[in-house]
Amino acid sequence: MKNTTSQTVEIHKAKTSKIDQVDFENLTFGKIFTDHMFVCDYVDGKWQTPKITPYGPMSFDPSARVFHYGQAVFEGMKAYKDDNGDVFLFRPDENYNRINKSAERLAMPEFPEHYFFEGLTTLLQLDNDWIKPGYGNSLYIRPFVIATQPSVSASEANEYRFIIICSPAQAYYSGDVSVLIEEKYSRSANGGFGYAKAAGNYAGQFYPTKLAKEKGYQQIIWTDANTHEYLEEAGTMNVFFRIGDKLITAPVSDRILDGVTRKSLIALAEKQGYDIEVRPIKVEEIIAAAKNGNLNEIFGAGTAAVISPVKAFGYKGEHYELPKQDNPYAAHFKKALMDIQYNKAEDTFGWRYKV
Amino acid sequence: MKNTTSQTVEIHKAKTSKIDQVDFENLTFGKIFTDHMFVCDYVDGKWQTPKITPYGPMSFDPSARVFHYGQAVFEGMKAYKDDNGDVFLFRPDENYNRINKSAERLAMPEFPEHYFFEGLTTLLQLDNDWIKPGYGNSLYIRPFVIATQPSVSASEANEYRFIIICSPAQAYYSGDVSVLIEEKYSRSANGGFGYAKAAGNYAGQFYPTKLAKEKGYQQIIWTDANTHEYLEEAGTMNVFFRIGDKLITAPVSDRILDGVTRKSLIALAEKQGYDIEVRPIKVEEIIAAAKNGNLNEIFGAGTAAVISPVKAFGYKGEHYELPKQDNPYAAHFKKALMDIQYNKAEDTFGWRYKV
Ligand SMILES: Cc1ncc(COP(=O)(O)O)c(C=O)c1O
Ligand SMILES: Cc1ncc(COP(=O)(O)O)c(C=O)c1O
Repeated sequence: MKNTTSQTVEIHKAKTSKIDQVDFENLTFGKIFTDHMFVCDYVDGKWQTPKITPYGPMSFDPSARVFHYGQAVFEGMKAYKDDNGDVFLFRPDENYNRINKSAERLAMPEFPEHYFFEGLTTLLQLDNDWIKPGYGNSLYIRPFVIATQPSVSASEANEYRFIIICSPAQAYYSGDVSVLIEEKYSRSANGGFGYAKAAGNYAGQFYPTKLAKEKGYQQIIWTDANTHEYLEEAGTMNVFFRIGDKLITAPVSDRILDGVTRKSLIALAEKQGYDIEVRPIKVEEIIAAAKNGNLNEIFGAGTAAVISPVKAFGYKGEHYELPKQDNPYAAHFKKALMDIQYNKAEDTFGWRYKV
Repeated sequence: MKNTTSQTVEIHKAKTSKIDQVDFENLTFGKIFTDHMFVCDYVDGKWQTPKITPYGPMSFDPSARVFHYGQAVFEGMKAYKDDNGDVFLFRPDENYNRINKSAERLAMPEFPEHYFFEGLTTLLQLDNDWIKPGYGNSLYIRPFVIATQPSVSASEANEYRFIIICSPAQAYYSGDVSVLIEEKYSRSANGGFGYAKAAGNYAGQFYPTKLAKEKGYQQIIWTDANTHEYLEEAGTMNVFFRIGDKLITAPVSDRILDGVTRKSLIALAEKQGYDIEVRPIKVEEIIAAAKNGNLNEIFGAGTAAVISPVKAFGYKGEHYELPKQDNPYAAHFKKALMDIQYNKAEDTFGWRYKV
């Protein structure tokens, strides 16, 4: 079965490709996976030889700790193909650093940098045909680490598996969303691990989001757990508010994920001379701005949707519609970011990473 | 492979038993599992026919949601055998209700009551030899539910698996523990899901506990995330404080697990005429009591250890030793609870459940 070896990665190629069975015009996000996956086990205190194997099911003991104690962290990144067929990642060092920051908070071992990058690039080369050119098309990449040690004892595991799987994605457009500003439930605690991209930060959001959906809202904007007076972030996006022509976003903290899209947007906005403030934002400030007509835009920022404009929000039983903009900041920054990602604009920040 | 069918459960018996390979005098908690497990899948909006099969690994797609978004809840309960060979559970209805309460908060489907109880009793009958008699010996039972739907999209899954695995356990005695009262990290948020027995509540505790261990403490007593002024619970136990002859424990809330051991101990203490108070407890009250010699005992209460006495604690860099007691409440309540569990005392509360 062993076909090739890169410097560090043992490669077992799939015998046949599934690519012809895939309708690339009608993709559901995160449902179809490419022909290969990257797998590396942590055993006996060290990461073993990484492998690329055909994508497929894996066997786990039912006592594997991830099922019981949620020791699991992940990343979300994308590969983009330009019109010449060149493939790019966007700031992958940020994802590499963040998965290790997440892992540290969950008492999981650090993953070696050269394994991460060599694994990623080798995988993308093998599954290169799955990355479709065209503005908005991409390959969504999901690195994740799970505790595999078979034993139901509530402490950090001594065995882990690092996996990378990839799923082709189309331009993500679900329409402008309506969001609910949460007053009761919380996403994360002071002193907790909300800043980590950890499995345990997501499961708790689904029930409150279900309740929000029953009220006609698609997503929640979380507020701080102590007072529910400050706006934090959405389920899988950081959030920006435009009051007048000023753009505001909450500072990151131990409760808020340090999003790559967010920090890239801030850097771009600063460079392009936009008035941007990173500071705590009170819900009442947004309500007041909405009432006096100064709240021009709200949008989410994250890898999956890039920028996701908000058309309306709910708070304390009131519904607020946002005004239509002729030249929304959301569209401007979405294009600016995507132009860099798809190699259509100069990369003055050095964010593109050629695979 | 199909051998027998109980009313609802399809039974596939193991061909041979592993029991002879097990050293029941030297068990590590949660490491060895019995010959069988209970498995029931939720697909197409309903729980399918439950099965009991030989214990063993299971196959999962790497995109199964539990690995990414932590949708996983569990229970911990024990089966006890008396000297006549009769097997008992302790308040299993509490565990059944709690796993569904946990599931609801994580947007997971409720598990049917008759599947739970018939699955559990059928499994215990099959693996009856694994339940060793003798005060302190037990079979630890781990029911759990995980999201199996293969797709990396951050929302509640539509496919789940309910599993019960069992692990023989000996009298749990790790010596009296030293605990650290936490000032910085937190276990759960107001409005979060700390009250649920959910995977995501555990992974975040391991790193702070590792830091505590480096300071010489084995466990953490968590304080409230807002102020760190109030004592909450330990990693897998609720906590009781004895000041003078008064026993105090924190009220349950959306941050604190409603422990079966805790509520049983409260009921016993009330019945036996102990002075017991359920109310918020300030750290400073405990420090003051420790300083003026009134803090007589601290102990944890949970299914695994029953009662776990604390011999010392740390707070803000100070170390406090607890005085030795001639007749500690911890030992009294441990015996009282175990006598009921092992059918050695009258069961005035109706807590025993004969299998
Ligand atoms: C909770 C949360 N906030 C924000 C983001 C956005 O981060 P990024 O821009 O790095 O994708 C994500 C990632 O998807 C997230 O899960
Ligand atoms: C966080 C937590 N608190 C308390 C307990 C004690 O609950 P019980 O007495 O039901 O075992 C547990 C269970 O092990 C737990 O995980």
